[in-house]
Amino acid sequence: MSGIIKSSGLHIGVLGGGQLGQMLGLAGIGLGHRFSFLDPAERPPAAQVGRHIRAEYDDPEALERLVRECDLITLEFENVPEATARWIDQHAEIAPPPQALAIAQDRLTEKLFFQQQGLAVAPFVALDTAEQAQSAFAEINGPGILKTRRLGYDGKGQVRFEDSDGVSAGFEQLGRVPCILEGLVDFEREVSMVCARRADGQMAFYPLTENEHQNGILYQSRVLTDDPLQQPAQSACRAVADALDYVGVLTIEFFVRNGELLVNEMAPRVHNSGHWSLGGAVCSQFENHLRAILGWPLGSTKPHSAALMRNLVGAMPQPSAVLQLPGVLLQDYGKSARPGRKLGHITLLAADQTTLDAQSEKLEQALADTPFG
Amino acid sequence: MSGIIKSSGLHIGVLGGGQLGQMLGLAGIGLGHRFSFLDPAERPPAAQVGRHIRAEYDDPEALERLVRECDLITLEFENVPEATARWIDQHAEIAPPPQALAIAQDRLTEKLFFQQQGLAVAPFVALDTAEQAQSAFAEINGPGILKTRRLGYDGKGQVRFEDSDGVSAGFEQLGRVPCILEGLVDFEREVSMVCARRADGQMAFYPLTENEHQNGILYQSRVLTDDPLQQPAQSACRAVADALDYVGVLTIEFFVRNGELLVNEMAPRVHNSGHWSLGGAVCSQFENHLRAILGWPLGSTKPHSAALMRNLVGAMPQPSAVLQLPGVLLQDYGKSARPGRKLGHITLLAADQTTLDAQSEKLEQALADTPFG
Repeated sequence: MSGIIKSSGLHIGVLGGGQLGQMLGLAGIGLGHRFSFLDPAERPPAAQVGRHIRAEYDDPEALERLVRECDLITLEFENVPEATARWIDQHAEIAPPPQALAIAQDRLTEKLFFQQQGLAVAPFVALDTAEQAQSAFAEINGPGILKTRRLGYDGKGQVRFEDSDGVSAGFEQLGRVPCILEGLVDFEREVSMVCARRADGQMAFYPLTENEHQNGILYQSRVLTDDPLQQPAQSACRAVADALDYVGVLTIEFFVRNGELLVNEMAPRVHNSGHWSLGGAVCSQFENHLRAILGWPLGSTKPHSAALMRNLVGAMPQPSAVLQLPGVLLQDYGKSARPGRKLGHITLLAADQTTLDAQSEKLEQALADTPFG
Repeated sequence: MSGIIKSSGLHIGVLGGGQLGQMLGLAGIGLGHRFSFLDPAERPPAAQVGRHIRAEYDDPEALERLVRECDLITLEFENVPEATARWIDQHAEIAPPPQALAIAQDRLTEKLFFQQQGLAVAPFVALDTAEQAQSAFAEINGPGILKTRRLGYDGKGQVRFEDSDGVSAGFEQLGRVPCILEGLVDFEREVSMVCARRADGQMAFYPLTENEHQNGILYQSRVLTDDPLQQPAQSACRAVADALDYVGVLTIEFFVRNGELLVNEMAPRVHNSGHWSLGGAVCSQFENHLRAILGWPLGSTKPHSAALMRNLVGAMPQPSAVLQLPGVLLQDYGKSARPGRKLGHITLLAADQTTLDAQSEKLEQALADTPFG
């Protein structure tokens, strides 16, 4: 990234064309830009808002085309090969920096990086061979989660264990690939922070959200106001983003244990826990990602209402059943239904927290009552 | 319109592909729909968010294709030939109803229709021939505006006059087409209301906006809160929409004289004076138009902040210059610059009216200071 302020009417290339790409495109078209999306899927959600280059992420011809037709490249999928990002970096402008991608792709590298920044993480041990299972378990000395170092998301690439036999079995199940063992954190809550950073170091931070997961998939994010951990989380985000010379939106997930933050992982992109900002803040995370990579002034991250985001996983509700509730905004990614697949989300807005809680109950009732489909 | 509640994932056809179509598409893709736009322009703004069928509005093949590939047809341009709307109505579902289009296209028919609904309009006389100039002027007996009955917009098709010679000259200038003569209304302000109506008669009303024009083109719309004319305007909108069995977003422009409403004209579509709702209300006029034609519950029209909309006409500012002000949202339609052309708009949001006024001054300063281009 040169850090030069970009003009209007640019052609922006995006690695990945899922719902995050679609929402980036919807925000960017409104700002006067146009898009190309590289994605191997046949008809990914973002194909509706730009040119779809259908190819694998390491296809040389596709990458050359992307670089040729775009003024600036970014990404919405963090498992793009590091080599792809490095190649683009040599031939065009890319944000976030490839190094951020490389670190986020490997759970071990990522944890070591967090520790280098002075940030606390959950106890962990690297595990490369079946022989190490016993000693690794001994170090953690209790139940935990075995995770592949690479290519895990939405609960995939993870196995819970109780004892060293469980570690061994899990290691087989995950295909004997390099893993890390994480001790189970007895956390009070999970929170995340979405922030944006420009090349000149300016940053904007969204409020923390408290996240609930089901089967390893994000279920709901509630926007926290005046949370005592907002400042510590911002400091952690700044440390990470500055160390990486980061440009764009960055997300960090934390566990809260004894009222203190433990860094869990980061995503070098817009994030599901920031979807509430679409309609719930003056400037959404999607627009702020684009503003950041364009060198434009960052927009207000302030929620204008009490807000929560509820994912729609596996099946979509009847729109009428949920839209009749006040303060409901529906986002439908246009994907075909499949168990465990994120198909859309609802942002719920209310004048205050009490009303939001009451509306949230009604929403859950409506979702439970309605035949999905 | 059958009034049946539609499902998700529909293909919506739009007559017209300008910025209104683009913003309809941006709202609708997020709701899970896809779009085709019929527009004779080479690369209209909406081409970014759907399939562009490039053809004239009366091209039989293009209309057949539109009807074949779309589940539902609507419009964003009111000068589509009435015959086109009627043909579509016989072969597919179209909203708003063709009758609304027919009435809005002819200033005389429109004024007579308003009067039939018991609504007050400015004094007017029809003028079909040069010979009628003298007597028409005598009836108005003062300065006014001569307007073509058909195809006028953004100050086009209008001539001011002071005397009967002015009327004659204006009639020549406008090409001797049927006109109406309107007496100049000594109004205190111009306001408009955007509302949405479903086939079952349910309606949602946005707050009135106070509109300022420059050279016949809308310059700025300010959202009015608790205006005493809100209820009378809603009643007028309901009378008009009910009489037309209207479905979709409808806009009515009014003059305010002696504190009372005089209906000026209507637009059977989303409207420039409602653009503030994109980012300024929970549910924008674009989303509410789609919700209305789909039979979905209408969304909240309530502004979450003090808001105004400022058009960007003829040239665009440097994005950085305006986005650095808090509460600024920029919409760039991606059109090439041309004098008098609407290229984008800014929505300005603030916590209260006083802050909004101060921010508005700063915005005007930024726009004046910045080299446009």
